[in-house]
Formats: sequence, structure tokens, C-alpha cells
Amino acid sequence: MQADLLNPALVAHTSHLFRSRSPLVHCMTNDVVQTFTANVLLAIGASPAMVIDADEARQFVAMADALLINVGTLTKERALAMRLAVESASANNKPWTLDPVAVGALALRTEFCHQLLALKPAAIRGNASEIMALAGMSLGGRGVDTTDTAAAALPAAQALARQISTVVAVTGEVDYVTDGRRTLMVTGGSSLMTRVVGTGCALSAVVVASCALPGDRLDNVAAACGIMKRAGSLATENSAGPGSFVAVFLDALYGEGQA
Amino acid sequence: MQADLLNPALVAHTSHLFRSRSPLVHCMTNDVVQTFTANVLLAIGASPAMVIDADEARQFVAMADALLINVGTLTKERALAMRLAVESASANNKPWTLDPVAVGALALRTEFCHQLLALKPAAIRGNASEIMALAGMSLGGRGVDTTDTAAAALPAAQALARQISTVVAVTGEVDYVTDGRRTLMVTGGSSLMTRVVGTGCALSAVVVASCALPGDRLDNVAAACGIMKRAGSLATENSAGPGSFVAVFLDALYGEGQA
Amino acid sequence: MQADLLNPALVAHTSHLFRSRSPLVHCMTNDVVQTFTANVLLAIGASPAMVIDADEARQFVAMADALLINVGTLTKERALAMRLAVESASANNKPWTLDPVAVGALALRTEFCHQLLALKPAAIRGNASEIMALAGMSLGGRGVDTTDTAAAALPAAQALARQISTVVAVTGEVDYVTDGRRTLMVTGGSSLMTRVVGTGCALSAVVVASCALPGDRLDNVAAACGIMKRAGSLATENSAGPGSFVAVFLDALYGEGQA
Repeated sequence: MQADLLNPALVAHTSHLFRSRSPLVHCMTNDVVQTFTANVLLAIGASPAMVIDADEARQFVAMADALLINVGTLTKERALAMRLAVESASANNKPWTLDPVAVGALALRTEFCHQLLALKPAAIRGNASEIMALAGMSLGGRGVDTTDTAAAALPAAQALARQISTVVAVTGEVDYVTDGRRTLMVTGGSSLMTRVVGTGCALSAVVVASCALPGDRLDNVAAACGIMKRAGSLATENSAGPGSFVAVFLDALYGEGQA
Repeated sequence: MQADLLNPALVAHTSHLFRSRSPLVHCMTNDVVQTFTANVLLAIGASPAMVIDADEARQFVAMADALLINVGTLTKERALAMRLAVESASANNKPWTLDPVAVGALALRTEFCHQLLALKPAAIRGNASEIMALAGMSLGGRGVDTTDTAAAALPAAQALARQISTVVAVTGEVDYVTDGRRTLMVTGGSSLMTRVVGTGCALSAVVVASCALPGDRLDNVAAACGIMKRAGSLATENSAGPGSFVAVFLDALYGEGQA
Repeated sequence: MQADLLNPALVAHTSHLFRSRSPLVHCMTNDVVQTFTANVLLAIGASPAMVIDADEARQFVAMADALLINVGTLTKERALAMRLAVESASANNKPWTLDPVAVGALALRTEFCHQLLALKPAAIRGNASEIMALAGMSLGGRGVDTTDTAAAALPAAQALARQISTVVAVTGEVDYVTDGRRTLMVTGGSSLMTRVVGTGCALSAVVVASCALPGDRLDNVAAACGIMKRAGSLATENSAGPGSFVAVFLDALYGEGQA
């Protein structure tokens, strides 16, 4: 396994593109992270919109630049709306991304995520346990937390990426982003980020926003990870704990786009 | 078109009334802004409660002082509960307010908002694209964002206000509040507020709270806008970005009530 | 009525246990407080997961260490999922806790809460009006707010605790925690906490997490209250209002666990 370090210039370039293009990101995400996800997208210069009714979601995908599917608080009704939205995304040639929260242990979401894989996500972002479970190589983590390191999940990520021709970001202390042939490694951030709910889910929203940008998809997704890692490092240095982290993190994301 | 500047004394007076009367505001709002909306209402001295089941909502409206309807994450089931709550509000002579998020482009909410207009909202608060769409003068904005200025939407706001005898607040860089005959203009705030999710939705909650106060409704709604603009100006001056903005903004709203 | 002051050493001991054991807390809670609840649990070192689909919730309870039921934004569908989860908790010998938000005045939640009492919660956490309504001694408060003091509700709390063999925490300016025979009193915090949405709901999550720890349940629940009171006092001293309170509060909870 070989992984190249992400070029920092890509992070600056992608930050600039988010500002100048302001992709409209349709988020179908879980109940816990809605506000933080929206604020992260606003801070980088993107435009979030959460539209959830099945008919409206199908309609809205055609107007949006990209679609996020996050199964954290899945219900059967939401699964139906998400599936229709993904089908609309495919029909309208819009990229969509899967965040398979806690896949593996719970039946409904596990079956749903496996069904969605057939509909060709532009990218998948998960922690190590999630990516391994999605690739069929483990039974999932502990609740929404991983029990494996990202490096341990890299072979699973590469296999999954090749199998369905997508980009897989397996994130943790170090992030790995792979299309199955080339792999980029993204460092930074801190363990404090695991004490703030939604950092992973919000990263998935930035990942899907990056899929709406021009340029190489693998580079874009890795840059999305790099933007979040960099803000995470800055916020860790300048905060007293997970409470103050949130404000500094959003300010850092916003400042990066402004610079 | 003539618009008078809001008298700052009205802002102070209304802030005081929120504290002394603490209106109980029944919020049926979208998934993304629940926490921020509640915290804004608490900061100004009002008392928020989110009751969403159709039967409970109908029951609760009779105990509350005012009802907020925000269609940001509408579903068919929620539309039914909202309609029953609005009918209960009418029957119990409680003011209710409509925030027609992203009306125009999406079929379910557009039809629903137009149906609700017949049930006589005390006030409507939206951005320029939303107000123009509601008045039948455009097809809506880009996602939840406006593509027009508030000034451009003022004729639509005035027509809408006259047509259904309500107060319409069309908000943006400058806010205009009109009953179709008299128009008040509210300045302040900053573009940073557009990078924080929920500032518009929370304003709608303050607007509906103001409709539960004694006094002239047009003045009250304009004062609600003024309270948020003033806190927005203060918070912009004293924050480093959209993350730190939130805390300073809520502190400013709270301090205004305390003074 | 006699109540002993909570021993501060218990607070330190319980803070340590949260960190070292990191209980996995399954939260079925209301729409308004999801993020704050998760962040509070993360800050004390616990591991939150929000799983809401009826089938998944039933399945997840068996993997979690404890289950929180909060009826703030109850619907009929959610009530069904909650009931199945509680039954699964009972079958799997997992402690579960009830937060009876606004019980009394609203029919659906009042009937639901009374049904749940038969399924033996490990603990109940509510404000004075809620505990009195649950014990059949009043008709509830004003919206989600209490109209009584915790001391006034202590007889109701003690009667309820004896009746169904549980621990009842009636919280307010002073918290009382009772099993019907012994009562602990917890002081601290400030009225500023009533201007921040979710402090009570998040306390209920810490209470249920404490029910998954070894040791005496009454002591554990009182210590959970003590942890939140202490952080509330610290945050009140070090914040300028309810906005800045949130960050300082979470940092204080996190620091307590770190020390």
C-alpha cells in the first residue's frame, strides 16, 4: 500500500473554488447534525438546503449541484425518500455521496446502504469500521464510533472503490482517500474532533460539495478532507475544549475561504 | 414607494415587552433551525415550545400565545399537522405566522403555503424571492437563498399584505415591513448573518412572538426585525466569523432584554 | 422531609467513571436538543447514538449500555418505536430513563408516559410540574417550563419513586434526587441555564448514562446532577450570556473528565 501526502496547494485551490462557485448542496442527513452541517457548508462558501419530502427531494435534486445521503437516523420512510432522490440524481447526472453511519450492525441501514451502492455514488465517506462493514469485511463498530484505524481499513476502501468505481474516503486520525488505484493521505486535526458531534458527518457534506467542483474527483475529495483537517488543527490549538472548538472551527473554515 | 425608518425607541420598548410578558411561542419549524430558534426566543425572554404531533399541536395552540409555521423541511404528514394547528389557532384567536422557506420552486410547499394564506396569517416573513413567489410574481430563489433584493420585492410584499390583510416582512440587507399602506424600513445587521444557518428562520419566530404583544402589529413586527438587526450588528463587530457570531448574537439579544 | 447534600467526592468519582467506561447511550430524544445532548455526552466521555427507526431501535438497545426516552417532540410513530425500544431494554436488562417533557397538559404524551411507567424506568428526570403531573398531583406546567419549585414537588417525587421502585430526579434551582426513602439535594448552577435550550434534556441523558455505571443508583443519578450543576456554575461565572454559556459549559464538562 502506497499513499501520497495531499498537496497543500490543492486545499487552497479547492477552498477558493467553494467560494467562487458556491455549490448548492442538497443534504438528506441525520437529525443530530443538521445545524452543524449547514453551518460548515455556509462557512466554506457553499449553499446548503435540506429538502426531505420524497416528492420535493426528487424535484430539488435536479436544481441542486450535489446530493448528500447520510443514514444516521434512517427510518423506512426516509429511506424511500432518499432512494427516490438518488435515482433523480442519477437521472439528472448530479453527483451524490453516501455517509454510511453505523452501517454493519443495524439491519435496515445495512441493507439500504448495500442497495444504494448499485446506484453509483460519486464518493463514500466513513470511518474505518463503516468502510470495512460496507466492503463486507467486518460487522461494524461500536454505535457510531469506529473500533478500527483508518489505515487498517485502507485495503477495504481500495477494494470497495475499485468494485463500484467510486472514491472512498476512510477518515480518522489520518484520512485516506482512494479510487482503488491512487491513494492520498491527509493528516492534521486532533482527537478533540471526536468529542464534537457531527465533524465526520459535516466532512461528508464538504466531500459531496467537492464532487460538484471541476477538476479531478480524487483530488477534490482529498482536498475536502484537508480543509476540515486544517480547520480542525487550528481550532484545537485555539480552543479550551469541545465547546469552544465549534466556533473557532467554523471561523477557521470561513477565514480560509476569505483569504 | 415610501418607507419610514423604524424608530429605535420601538425596539427598546418591544424588547422590554418580550421580557415582561414572556409569550409562549408554539414553533412548528424545520429540522435545521430548531435549537437556534429556541435559543433566540429564550434569549429575548420568550418561551418556546416545539409540539409537532397533529393532535398535540392542535391542543397546544390553545394554550400558547402564538404559532409559527415554517415549511423548510415540510413533509405531507407535517403539512397535515401544521394545517390542523393553524385551524386551531384561528378558532382560538391566536396569531400565527408563516415562514415560506424556498416557496416557489418546490410543488408541495408552494401549494401548501398558498392554501395557508386563506387562513389569515398575522404576519409573513420571508426573503425577497420567497415573498415574490408567494405573491405570484416569480418562481422562487436558489434553494433557500434569495436571488433578489428586498427592495425589489417590496411591491410584491405590499400587494400580498393588502390582498390578505396581513403584515409582510421582506428581509435581507435592509428589511421592509408593510401592511400594504404603511411601510417601515429596518437597517443594520451584516452579510455575515447569511453565513449562519437559521438567522432568518429565528427572525420569523421573533416576529410571531411580537404578534402576541399588545400594540400596533406593524410596529411590533418591525421592532422584531430591529431587535435582530441590532444584535446582528453588535455580533458582527465582536466576532471573528460565523462560528463565534452565534454566541455573541445570543448574548446581545439577552443583554438587550436585561438592560 | 429530609434531604442530604450530595457529597462532592461522588461527582469526581462519577466523572472519572464516565471517562473510563464510556457508556454507549442510545438516545431517543426530541428534535430540539439532539446536538446539545450528543455534545454533552461526548464532553463527559460517554458515547451517544441516536437510532430511531422502530426495528433498528429495538436492535440497537441490545448493544447499548442504556436508553433515554424523551417525549418532547413525540408523535404516534415515535411513541411506537420508543415503546418497542423500552421493551427491548427490559428484555435485555438495560437501564432506561424517562424525561417526561411537558407531561400533563397534552394528551398523547401524558397517556404514553403513564403507560411507560409500567415498564420500570431505572430513573425519571423532570422539572417540578412534570414530576407532579406524572405522580397525578397536578396538570403540568406552562409549555415546557415548570410553574412550581422542585422542593414543592419533592413529596410527589418520593411517592412516585416508591410506587414504581425507581429513582426520581426533580430538578430546578435546587435538584432533589430520591428513591422514596433516601433523598439527596444538589445545589449549584444558575437561572441562566433556563435561557439555554436543552440543559434539562441533556441532564436526562447524563442521568441515563449514570444508570449504566456500577455503584448505587441513587448516588449515581445525584452525581449526574452534580456534574451538570458544577459545570453550570463555572459556565455562568465565565460567560456573558446564554450564547457564550454553551461553549464554556461543554468545555467545563470536558475538563472535569480530563482532570
